[in-house]
Order: sequence, then C-alpha cells, then structure tokens
Amino acid sequence: MTRQPAQPSLEELAAKLAEFARERDWDQFHAPKNLAMALAGEVGELLEHFQWLSEQQSADLPPATRDAVALELADVLLYLVRLADKLQIDLGAAALRKIELNGLKYPVDRFHGSSRKYDEPS
Amino acid sequence: MTRQPAQPSLEELAAKLAEFARERDWDQFHAPKNLAMALAGEVGELLEHFQWLSEQQSADLPPATRDAVALELADVLLYLVRLADKLQIDLGAAALRKIELNGLKYPVDRFHGSSRKYDEPS
Amino acid sequence: MTRQPAQPSLEELAAKLAEFARERDWDQFHAPKNLAMALAGEVGELLEHFQWLSEQQSADLPPATRDAVALELADVLLYLVRLADKLQIDLGAAALRKIELNGLKYPVDRFHGSSRKYDEPS
Amino acid sequence: MTRQPAQPSLEELAAKLAEFARERDWDQFHAPKNLAMALAGEVGELLEHFQWLSEQQSADLPPATRDAVALELADVLLYLVRLADKLQIDLGAAALRKIELNGLKYPVDRFHGSSRKYDEPS
Repeated sequence: MTRQPAQPSLEELAAKLAEFARERDWDQFHAPKNLAMALAGEVGELLEHFQWLSEQQSADLPPATRDAVALELADVLLYLVRLADKLQIDLGAAALRKIELNGLKYPVDRFHGSSRKYDEPS
Repeated sequence: MTRQPAQPSLEELAAKLAEFARERDWDQFHAPKNLAMALAGEVGELLEHFQWLSEQQSADLPPATRDAVALELADVLLYLVRLADKLQIDLGAAALRKIELNGLKYPVDRFHGSSRKYDEPS
Repeated sequence: MTRQPAQPSLEELAAKLAEFARERDWDQFHAPKNLAMALAGEVGELLEHFQWLSEQQSADLPPATRDAVALELADVLLYLVRLADKLQIDLGAAALRKIELNGLKYPVDRFHGSSRKYDEPS
Repeated sequence: MTRQPAQPSLEELAAKLAEFARERDWDQFHAPKNLAMALAGEVGELLEHFQWLSEQQSADLPPATRDAVALELADVLLYLVRLADKLQIDLGAAALRKIELNGLKYPVDRFHGSSRKYDEPS
C-alpha cells in the first residue's frame, strides 16, 4: 500500500478537530458523555458491516466495503481523539501504558495460543 | 500536563500490536470481525463510566475515574489500530479524508451552533 | 396511551421471528455471535438519537423522534429475543432472576438515592 | 427445556422495574439518554463473551458461559423495558409493527438465503 508522505499524529488530529468544533460553535455539544455516545454510535455502524460475514470474509472485504469500513474507522478515531482531548488525556501515552500493562497481564509463556482472559483459569 | 518527549505514531502502535500478537500466536483470533467486536466491548466499558453522570460531571471527572477512562480510551485505540492494520487500512489517511468530507457536509455557515445531522432540515 | 388489546409475549415474538427466518432460510446467518453483533449495531443506532440531547430533552422527544426511537427499541428487542431463542435461554425467567439478584446487590437502605455500583464504596 | 409456569409479560417487567427504581429513588438517574447508555454498556459485556469464539462455538456454549450470557441478556432486556417505559413506548406493539415492516422490506422471494440489506442490490 502506498503511504501518504506524512501521517497525521494524534495531536495534529486533536488540533484539527478542536478547530472544526470552534468554527461551528460545537463545544457546547461536546461534553465527554456525549462524545462517548457518539463514539459508540459509530462503532455500531462499524459492526453492521461485519455482522453477517464469516471471519474469513471479514478479512477479505470487497473494495467498496473496505472503503466504507475505512471511513467508519476514521469516525471512531475522530471521536476518540476528540474525547481524549476534551478530557485532557494524552491518548498516545495511555496507549503505550496499556500495552505495557497488557504485557504484564498476558505473559507470553502462559497465554501463547490462548484467547482466555488473564483472570480465567487455563 | 507534562507530555512525554515522543508520542507514538499510529504506525508505531500498529507495529507494537502486531508484535504482541505474533509473540502470543494470537493472529488466529484477530479476524477483523472479532476485532470489531472487541472494540465494541471496550466502548461498552467506556460508556459505563459516564452513564449516570451529568454532562458537567463528565467533563470534570475525579482523578481515579479519569485515569480509568484513560485506560479505556487506550483499549479502544489499540483495537482500532489493530483492526485497521489487519485490513491494511491507513487509519491516519482515512481520518484526514473524513475530516475533509465532514467539512463539506457541515459548512460553517449552515451548521453554526447546530447539532442536527447534515441531512436533517434546519 | 391506548394499549392494543393483546400484548405479544416474549415467546410469541420468538416464534414469529423463528418463522420469519425459516421462510427466508436465514438460520445459516443467525449464529449467536452474529446476532449479538446485530443487536449491538441496533443499539448504536439508538444512541445516535440521544447523543446530542440533554437529559431533559431525551425525556421529552418530538413525536417523529419518539416514533423512530420506538422502532429502534423494537429492533433491539427482536434481536434480543432471537438471540435468546437460538441459545435456548428463557429470557423472561432470566429477567426475573436478574431482578432478584439486583435486589440483593442493591438493598434499598444502602443505595437509596445513589448511582454508585454495588461494589463501589459509599 | 422446562419452562416456568408463568412467563412475565413486558408490562409486568416494566412495573417491577418502576417499583425497583421508586424504592431507591433512582428515577433521577433514569433519563432516557442515560438508560440508552446503560443498555449499550450491557450489550458491550454481552459481546465480550462472543468475540473470540467461532460462530459454531457461539452456538454451543459451555454451561457456565451460557448461564453468564443469560444474565447479560436479562440486563439488556431490563434496561430496554425500563427505557421504553420512561418514554411511554409500547414495546410489544412496536415489536409487532417492526416485524410487519421487516416483512415488507424483505419479501421472501427476493431475500431467500441472502443476508444483504433491503436497499442493497442483489
């Protein structure tokens, strides 16, 4: 896949979304509670693309579906970035911290090839 | 808020998650359909933090809640990045494209101060 | 509100939905996993009606919105009933059992006027 | 499966939940917006049971999982019934109306064996 020369960072996206909202006077609607709902609504739309597909089909989407899914993923990301920004949460730092925590909860030797939860018996 | 010196890019996160899954032989579980469900499950956990709060309270979380919410947002981001990666979707490019589309659907002069959808009558 | 003379029972709805699926040869799609996703997708549509409303506005919907919400609630119920049926879960009995469990988790004297979770300190 | 002698009707469940809330002074929290979020949160928990299962596995749950899923379905039903009640929506009537509408959108001869949406080309 050809990549665009410059990927936007999470902070650049947050800045763009803040400006988008400011221009439209939308901060009044963007309480974190509301943004969390909007995020969940977009995830619902994402699920609708996959619900009747087999796992294999979901990995091999027709181009039009894949393009529609890309825009749904974008919607989820945009609300997520906006929500983190309104809460002054550093999303990138939180993600790194969570990967580290997951590494502790799911040590390689005990969870190799297993989908059970960290607190489920093996 | 003190920022860490280097923010992870979306691509760096995707690479870390791919390695995390490879080490644990988890690719077998990571069909896009399954990742979309896992993403939705994390969003459900996020909603539970906000459901009984007023909008004002949601903007002014106690530190412990805010920290828990940060990790929920991280979970959402990690599944989102992983899902995009499995579908070979360039998430950053899709986000930029979506912001541009939203600008066309929601021109400033017609949607200033309004929360209606682009296809709803004003 | 004028009630229709006869309300459908959960079992009558389950029977109607089973027939609907049988006529269309849709059982092949109705794995519980898929039905759970479809249910979540409908809940996402439901959220979209409420996300920018205040709590007060959500209690006082314009008639057209209220009618649209009624059909979203119906969608959620139909997938829920269908999912329970495919899993041979007695949904009505489970609901009664859950109300009883909730009564034990949330005794009146300790949770009067409080929205905290049963395992949160008061 | 042995059925209990009397299944609760949707209206009986609504009455029980209204009493449950009244005893705890919880009506103050039960704005439709909040109930919709709580419903979505429960659906998130439901998804977590299915996300790494194959379709076949989801139809053949181990007894402990099936029992846990039954209580999740109950949670979803209870919030759904409560939400409909707060909006004075007749959930049973809406469900019957939706089944009828679905019959018009999905005529047997055109959608036999197909999972496409009613507005998708065949």
